[in-house]
Amino acid sequence: MDPLIRTVTIDLGPRSYPVYIGENLLDQAGQLCRRSSLEGHAALVTDTKVGALYAERVVKALADSGFKVSTHLINAGEVSKSFPVIETLCEDFARHGIDRRSFVVALGGGVVGDLAGFAASIYYRGVPVIQIPTTIMAQVDSSIGGKTGINLSAGKNLVGAFHQPLAVLADTTTLATLGKREWNEGFAEVIKYGVIREKQLLSDLRHGALSLPALVRQCVEIKGLFVAGDEREITGSRALLNFGHTLGHAIETVAGYGTFLHGEAVALGMIAAAHVSANRAGLPEEEVKEIEAAIKHYDLPTRLPKALPLSKILERVFADKKFVDGKIRFVVTSKLGSAFLADNITIQDLESGLQAIEKSQP
Amino acid sequence: MDPLIRTVTIDLGPRSYPVYIGENLLDQAGQLCRRSSLEGHAALVTDTKVGALYAERVVKALADSGFKVSTHLINAGEVSKSFPVIETLCEDFARHGIDRRSFVVALGGGVVGDLAGFAASIYYRGVPVIQIPTTIMAQVDSSIGGKTGINLSAGKNLVGAFHQPLAVLADTTTLATLGKREWNEGFAEVIKYGVIREKQLLSDLRHGALSLPALVRQCVEIKGLFVAGDEREITGSRALLNFGHTLGHAIETVAGYGTFLHGEAVALGMIAAAHVSANRAGLPEEEVKEIEAAIKHYDLPTRLPKALPLSKILERVFADKKFVDGKIRFVVTSKLGSAFLADNITIQDLESGLQAIEKSQP
Repeated sequence: MDPLIRTVTIDLGPRSYPVYIGENLLDQAGQLCRRSSLEGHAALVTDTKVGALYAERVVKALADSGFKVSTHLINAGEVSKSFPVIETLCEDFARHGIDRRSFVVALGGGVVGDLAGFAASIYYRGVPVIQIPTTIMAQVDSSIGGKTGINLSAGKNLVGAFHQPLAVLADTTTLATLGKREWNEGFAEVIKYGVIREKQLLSDLRHGALSLPALVRQCVEIKGLFVAGDEREITGSRALLNFGHTLGHAIETVAGYGTFLHGEAVALGMIAAAHVSANRAGLPEEEVKEIEAAIKHYDLPTRLPKALPLSKILERVFADKKFVDGKIRFVVTSKLGSAFLADNITIQDLESGLQAIEKSQP
Repeated sequence: MDPLIRTVTIDLGPRSYPVYIGENLLDQAGQLCRRSSLEGHAALVTDTKVGALYAERVVKALADSGFKVSTHLINAGEVSKSFPVIETLCEDFARHGIDRRSFVVALGGGVVGDLAGFAASIYYRGVPVIQIPTTIMAQVDSSIGGKTGINLSAGKNLVGAFHQPLAVLADTTTLATLGKREWNEGFAEVIKYGVIREKQLLSDLRHGALSLPALVRQCVEIKGLFVAGDEREITGSRALLNFGHTLGHAIETVAGYGTFLHGEAVALGMIAAAHVSANRAGLPEEEVKEIEAAIKHYDLPTRLPKALPLSKILERVFADKKFVDGKIRFVVTSKLGSAFLADNITIQDLESGLQAIEKSQP
């Protein structure tokens, strides 16, 4: 194999799989699928935006390796993560003769990965999926770990499956076509890995010390570590990946899908969680500032829009999470590079944390 | 526990579960759910027909054991196994506060079990399901083994999941309210177990030698055996349960959902498969007759309607199944009480088998 390809193995026993990271991997998609012993018909799922840029290359690569390929387009954007789109996709698979011996290839960002991965998990009660993430957020986070799903009106990802891919191809050259906002949002998850596991990442980010492939590789290794210890988010290790996400999700939902990109909402959630950590877990003030500085470095939001009252966000958290005796399980950090699940965080603690990102603050 | 309850364990390692079989089990639903260490909120899914008869008793039994219960009604009938109904169900769960700590109770026949089981498998990426089958077909077959799913326009059960229940409660007193046609169709699967595993069942059926609980128990044991050896239908042992189903499904689809009940189509498929077995696997003619006699004993159809040409059925099989060098894998029997997967059955063999159930035949 190309010596320039970095490979990280996600260690899940019989469901282990390789993540290939490198430049121009798209053109090797066929060979890499063969390495996973796939054969037959490939159903390439992509969105209108990514498809226009890269579908042709992937189709060619797959066809050159002897795969029959059909292409299935969805509209770009979070609204596609819905039951009607899944239904259309599955009916479309059937019309193209995709069967239990076929496989799905998900080419795109988080939405395509979640949607195509979920379709693969339920079509014929499960066919293999190859993830080809084309955004930073998808390469460092959502393509790894098998979480797939769609949204309900009550919330994001409330319906889905754990369906590990057979392989992930992270072609870092595809990141060059990202818009500035999509580029930046991906770094919210990278910053999260710095906070919960690898402090050095935060300064590396600010000094541009890592090449893109090296950066993606490090993030994939960290994500793989948390996932391997807790594949189905039962024991709690995987839950640490939710740092910033409890409040981030609530902000994203209350603001309305589309107001904030996922990473932007997570950035806000991380600042609030950093303040909760300072108040309840002894995170030093300068480390709170270090998190904020990394977020600012990527032009991610640090303040809520005025139209978003804290009470609405707190109501949302209250509806989503289980409070026992007024307390919630919430990921905090006492020290950069580590995190733990506190079980004694109150709604008042969350309110104090959120006050740090209120518009009226300096 | 009530000494009159028979318990069969479906042996699937960490996913093993008990099947409770007995009279008036509905009233013990709460206690039996507690035995599975469930707590929290129960989402009872049932259809308009079964719900009117039994929902109240199950709700009371669950509530008496301290469960919060919400009831979710679907329309009776195969057309409910669709994406829009799954979406409505999941949205309804969310509105009622069903979360990852809740569980689903499926009360009804095969449609309810398939639909509610599938909803449970994808809601919050999987919550537990308790199956309470109320038809013979569901008690002896579909509630056991974890297959769940919905239909696409291209075919039945093309979308779904393997999602084993946490327990199955087969209350044989519920069978008393079945219509004659629903009662009879259930015996198609019982006859199948006789053909592929336990010849004695066929004469027991004709002589009414078994009580209902004893009959259900024997069928559950047989189904459990095949499922335990091949949970996800990969190695082939589970595939033997498809005796009569390849042609049965094709007949059901071509005739249009609703023309035949599932068991009626399977009965036709079994007669055709018996003739294929006689022609290609040496099944003695008197054993073919024994299968036909059992099917007639339950007033199940033995001839196709005139409007259903063989060519349409064969086309359907050709579209559904993989033919290699003109040959298909197809379950046959050489001797009642056994079956094997032949890999050399041709479309001509199927045509000969189907000719035995053509209307023009005597």
